[in-house]
Amino acid sequence: MSERVTVPAREGLALRVRAGQSFRVIDVEGRQCGDLFAFCADDVSEHASAAHTRVHVNRLFPRVGEHFVTNRRRPMLFFLADHSPGVHDMLVAACDPTRYAGLGVKGWHASCQENLLGAMSRLGFDRIVVPQPINLFTNIPLTGDGGLEWRPALTRPGDSVVLRAELDCHVVVSACPQDVVAINDKHPTSLAVEVLDG
Amino acid sequence: MSERVTVPAREGLALRVRAGQSFRVIDVEGRQCGDLFAFCADDVSEHASAAHTRVHVNRLFPRVGEHFVTNRRRPMLFFLADHSPGVHDMLVAACDPTRYAGLGVKGWHASCQENLLGAMSRLGFDRIVVPQPINLFTNIPLTGDGGLEWRPALTRPGDSVVLRAELDCHVVVSACPQDVVAINDKHPTSLAVEVLDG
Repeated sequence: MSERVTVPAREGLALRVRAGQSFRVIDVEGRQCGDLFAFCADDVSEHASAAHTRVHVNRLFPRVGEHFVTNRRRPMLFFLADHSPGVHDMLVAACDPTRYAGLGVKGWHASCQENLLGAMSRLGFDRIVVPQPINLFTNIPLTGDGGLEWRPALTRPGDSVVLRAELDCHVVVSACPQDVVAINDKHPTSLAVEVLDG
Repeated sequence: MSERVTVPAREGLALRVRAGQSFRVIDVEGRQCGDLFAFCADDVSEHASAAHTRVHVNRLFPRVGEHFVTNRRRPMLFFLADHSPGVHDMLVAACDPTRYAGLGVKGWHASCQENLLGAMSRLGFDRIVVPQPINLFTNIPLTGDGGLEWRPALTRPGDSVVLRAELDCHVVVSACPQDVVAINDKHPTSLAVEVLDG
């Protein structure tokens, strides 16, 4: 009753989700972060926005039953279910080539930003803004004085979240290739996405 | 030895700051938030980015002696001095007409987003991305479970911060018009900006 697609380790994938459809993002092997982006299908300059979502829900991250909103403050994704430890992040930017260079990596390294740009380019969108991602399963706790810690994801194999689109959108999921910092336990693995019947 | 300009209550102002120049943002009467934006002069698609800055400094907000970086992770503003209680925010989006409508305001209400767009438009930039602002003096503490509270700014008259530009940039300062939520003590007042000799 649903279509399941794999997001290979270190890669990204775009999928079209219609308003009313739900989709599940699954951490197949566990300890894997998923960078999620969503763009309005009829105008990709409107996208899920962490900064506006924090205001909307008055929290660092929505709870089940709350919405992620766009940069125009329209409800875009409804947080339907969380079958994971419930630890997610909306504070840190997508990794990109400059991030890996700064971490000492020599030569090319896959990144969530390149995965996003590639996935959207294959849909014909060559000039998009790179939003702050919704970092599913990403374990970046705050210290008491406002510091960030980068810890391995707490997810176990098969953990998932379910979101419902409130607007027709292009959703991009990147299986984060980060293997220098510990968030993927230094072993990036795949994700899967199931689009559920609307 | 410096040029001082007033940002009238509820209004915004753009100024050109050269690499190496410093500028001071002053809360003239106290309890007033200042939304700060900075765009690279030679390419306004590169701008100060909260999400990338959090990664760069591993904190929710830089400390004196640290940098705000751009969405390309280049150091853009150096946090030179803080003559205020040291409470600032980079979590919440700029207020905009939709925000005020959601708060029950009927009719037009000034907003930091319109102040930004107007200031940049007067410089000839009609299509810019609206970044997450650097919310100077803005007191939005976190509760233990990840909630946000909106409290009056702690600043007293004349409190200020000093930033040094590392790149030629257009800096926009908005004297936040928020008078529904308590962050400006429900009484928006002016700010002042001094560009110091480079």
